[in-house]
Amino acid sequence: MKGFAYLLLAVVALTGVLVYMAHASGHADGEAAPIFGIKIPPGYRDWRLISVAHEEGNLNDLRALLGNDAAIKAYREGKLTFPDGTIIARLAWSYVPSEENNKVFGRAQSFVPGPATNVQFMVKDSRKYAATGGWGFAQFKDGKPAADALLRTCFPCHEPVKARDFVFTHYAP
Amino acid sequence: MKGFAYLLLAVVALTGVLVYMAHASGHADGEAAPIFGIKIPPGYRDWRLISVAHEEGNLNDLRALLGNDAAIKAYREGKLTFPDGTIIARLAWSYVPSEENNKVFGRAQSFVPGPATNVQFMVKDSRKYAATGGWGFAQFKDGKPAADALLRTCFPCHEPVKARDFVFTHYAP
Repeated sequence: MKGFAYLLLAVVALTGVLVYMAHASGHADGEAAPIFGIKIPPGYRDWRLISVAHEEGNLNDLRALLGNDAAIKAYREGKLTFPDGTIIARLAWSYVPSEENNKVFGRAQSFVPGPATNVQFMVKDSRKYAATGGWGFAQFKDGKPAADALLRTCFPCHEPVKARDFVFTHYAP
Repeated sequence: MKGFAYLLLAVVALTGVLVYMAHASGHADGEAAPIFGIKIPPGYRDWRLISVAHEEGNLNDLRALLGNDAAIKAYREGKLTFPDGTIIARLAWSYVPSEENNKVFGRAQSFVPGPATNVQFMVKDSRKYAATGGWGFAQFKDGKPAADALLRTCFPCHEPVKARDFVFTHYAP
């Protein structure tokens, strides 16, 4: 019985360590976005580049689109629909002039990323997200998911590009 | 002697295969850039993202900076000098409005990559490139290296950012 008590203690201690580790590893184990239940995919910052863009208007950001292996493979093969398991990450930073660079160039011509604004994900699961073209949508700011109301605006905006499987971004060679 | 003839034939055939393979694999085995003798590093399009930017002025491009493992490691560790073996790739595309996206957004706000302009590389080798801050510079357009005269303009432009090991680009988190 004493052996069992020690074993129980060990299990409790190990559970504590695992819970601590889950917290310590940060965003990847953070809150899931509502509606679509998407968490930040671990290691997405290491994914390969799909393309870049500059959005003016209210957002006024510089952005990079990264894709997991399934996304990159589909893009490079010119697939018209993305397979289940595809994840596309949209990173964005505020659009700011680079004083450092402009000083060297002698004129205001260089615009670079300021602070990160938010990161968005499109996750393909044709059954789970059948109501929204097979895609789940998520947005995180400093690891915190966006509210339901915002996420409900994603699909209506992507719907006009149905012919491109609801994906705006083309691959930049 | 007959055995030797066969062996010779085999070597000649194998050489032919290797030469063919070198050609078939494309850019990576293409012409080296003059002065610094840099070839296009194989697989650079798969490297991880350092940052993005928009250069106005004569270039007017959208660009992505990618780094090999040594580059990414140094950036993430906040190293002030990059180790030998570091390669930073600068991809660039002409800066064009996206008619497709703007139609959806209802206003002209989206700028995306047009055709690729050229790709540049900075290669760190503190002994080989001692005269230019430890960096070799290369530029390729459609796989063809830029002329000596152009490459000689690289280092003078990077010299003002000596405090950042002659590298303009900061890491975008």
